[in-house]
Amino acid sequence: MSLANAPTGKPATPPFPDWALGVQTRVEAALLRYLPSGDAIPGRLHQAMRYASLNGGKRVRPLLAFAAGELTAAPPERVEIVAGAVELIHGYSLVHDDLPCMDDDVLRRGRPTCHVEYDEATALLVGDSLQSLAFELLASQDFGDAARQVEMLRLLARASGSRGMAGGQSIDLESVGKHLEQPELELMHALKTGALIHAAVLLGALCGGALSTAEREALDRFARRAGLLFQVVDDILDCTASTITLGKTAGKDAATEKPTYVSLMSLERAREFAADLKNQALAALAIFGERRQRLCELTEFIAQRQF
Amino acid sequence: MSLANAPTGKPATPPFPDWALGVQTRVEAALLRYLPSGDAIPGRLHQAMRYASLNGGKRVRPLLAFAAGELTAAPPERVEIVAGAVELIHGYSLVHDDLPCMDDDVLRRGRPTCHVEYDEATALLVGDSLQSLAFELLASQDFGDAARQVEMLRLLARASGSRGMAGGQSIDLESVGKHLEQPELELMHALKTGALIHAAVLLGALCGGALSTAEREALDRFARRAGLLFQVVDDILDCTASTITLGKTAGKDAATEKPTYVSLMSLERAREFAADLKNQALAALAIFGERRQRLCELTEFIAQRQF
Repeated sequence: MSLANAPTGKPATPPFPDWALGVQTRVEAALLRYLPSGDAIPGRLHQAMRYASLNGGKRVRPLLAFAAGELTAAPPERVEIVAGAVELIHGYSLVHDDLPCMDDDVLRRGRPTCHVEYDEATALLVGDSLQSLAFELLASQDFGDAARQVEMLRLLARASGSRGMAGGQSIDLESVGKHLEQPELELMHALKTGALIHAAVLLGALCGGALSTAEREALDRFARRAGLLFQVVDDILDCTASTITLGKTAGKDAATEKPTYVSLMSLERAREFAADLKNQALAALAIFGERRQRLCELTEFIAQRQF
Repeated sequence: MSLANAPTGKPATPPFPDWALGVQTRVEAALLRYLPSGDAIPGRLHQAMRYASLNGGKRVRPLLAFAAGELTAAPPERVEIVAGAVELIHGYSLVHDDLPCMDDDVLRRGRPTCHVEYDEATALLVGDSLQSLAFELLASQDFGDAARQVEMLRLLARASGSRGMAGGQSIDLESVGKHLEQPELELMHALKTGALIHAAVLLGALCGGALSTAEREALDRFARRAGLLFQVVDDILDCTASTITLGKTAGKDAATEKPTYVSLMSLERAREFAADLKNQALAALAIFGERRQRLCELTEFIAQRQF
C-alpha cells in the first residue's frame, strides 16, 4: 500500500475503473449462480435466459446499487442480491423491448437479440421468467430484517410495473410520431428508465444502516436526476455514436420518429441539459459526506460514457 | 336459521354454490380495487389490464385459496390479497399464452383476446405489468408477520417462473407434434397449471394459523393431485365441449397436435384417471377433519365442471 493512496492510514481505495470492473465481474458471477443451469428442465428456456442475461452488459444499475450501498456501509453480499434482482428485471425488459411487436430490434450488445437467436415464444417466456426470478431471488435470501425485505420487494415490483418501467414503455409506444413537450418526455423517461434506476439506488442503500428522512429525500432527489441524466445521455449517444460502438442499432430513435431530448431541444442544448442534471445529482449527495465518493464518480461516468 | 342447516347450534354454512359465488364476487371486487384506474397514466395500458383481468373468469385459484384458508381459520381480508395476487399471475399468463407467437388465440371467455381487442405490444405490456402488480400487491399489505410474507412472495415467484408455470409453458411449446409418455406429460402439467394451483392452496392456508409438518405435507399432496385433476378435466373438456360452452376455442389441442391425456390414454381412461385423482386429493385432506369441507366440495366441483 503506497502512502499516496492511503495518507490517513485507511485502506487504499481502488481507482474508480478498478472498482467498477470489480462490481461488474462480481455481478456477472452472481448472475451465473442465480440463473438456473442450462441443463435444468426446460433446458432451452434456461439456456435462453442465460444467453439474454450473461452478456457483459455495462451493469449500470448494479453499479448504482453498490455505490449507494457505500452510503450506508451495506454488506456487499447483500448488495449483490439486490443488484442481481434489479439486473434481472432490466434484462427481462430488454428481451421484451426487442421483440418484433415492440422495437423489433435484431442486435443487442453486438449479438443477435434473444428472439433472433432462439424464437419469439422463447424470448417471451425468457422475459416473463427473468421477472419472476428477480422476485424469487430477492425473497429467497436472508436479509436479517424481513419487514425491510418486504419493503424492498414492494419497491422493485412498483418500479417494474405499469406505474414504473412497463408504464414508461407504454407511453413510449403511444408517443411514436407525436410531438411531446419536455414535461411529457420527462414523465415517460422517469418511468421507462428512471424508475428502475431509482429502485437500484434505493435498494442498494437499504441493504445497509437506516437512512434519516433527510438522507432518504436526498437519495430520492439524486436518483431522479441520475435517471434522467442517463436517458438524456442515451438520446445523445443514439444520435452521435455508431452501431458498432453502441452494440445496438444506432439512429433508431430518429428513424422510428421517437421523441428524444435531441429532437426536442437540439444536440447542443441536450448536452447542456445533461451537464445541469449531473450537477444537480451531485449536489443532492452533499449530505452524505465522504461516503458519497463512489456515487459521485459513477455519476461522472454516466455523464461521460461513450457507449 | 333452520334446524336442518344448523343442527349443532353452529352458524349455518351456506351451500357450496352460494359460497363459491360469494368468493367470486369478492375477488372480482378486490381486483377492481387492486388494478390501477383506467384514467391513470398510461391510460391505454391500465384499461387493457382491466379488460384482461375483470372478465368474470371461474376464479378457480381464488376459490382454492379461500377453501384452503378455511383449514387454518385464515382471515378473509388476507386471503383476498393472496387470491388476488395469484389471479393476477394467472391473468398475465393467459394474455401472453394467447399471443400470436404462442397459442395465437383470438377468443377468451367469450370475448376477443387482449391483443385482438388492443394490440400485441399492449398485450405484452399487460402481461408484464400484471405480473409486477401481483408481487407489488402481495408486498404492499400488512400480514402481521413479515417473515411469512417473504415466504409467500418466494412461493408465488417460484411457482410463476421457469421452474413453475412459465417453464411448463416452455415444455408445452417444445412438445407440439411429439409423442410424450405419461411421466413427461405429468411434469409438463405439474409446472404449467399445477405450480400456480399449488401456490394458491399454500398461500391461502398460510394466511391463517401455522400448519404442522404433517398438515403441510398433506396439503402439498392434495395440491399436486388437485392440480393434475384440473388439467385432466381440461383436456377432457377440450375434446368434448363446444367453443360456446368453453368460451375459448375448443378442439384446439388436437388441431395443434398438442399431447393431452385424452390423446395419450383415450377419453374413457382419462375419465377414470380423473376419478382416481379426485379420490387421492380428497383422501389427502382427511387430516384436517371438519375444516376440510370447502376444499372437498371444491375438488368435486373441479372434477365435475362442464366449462
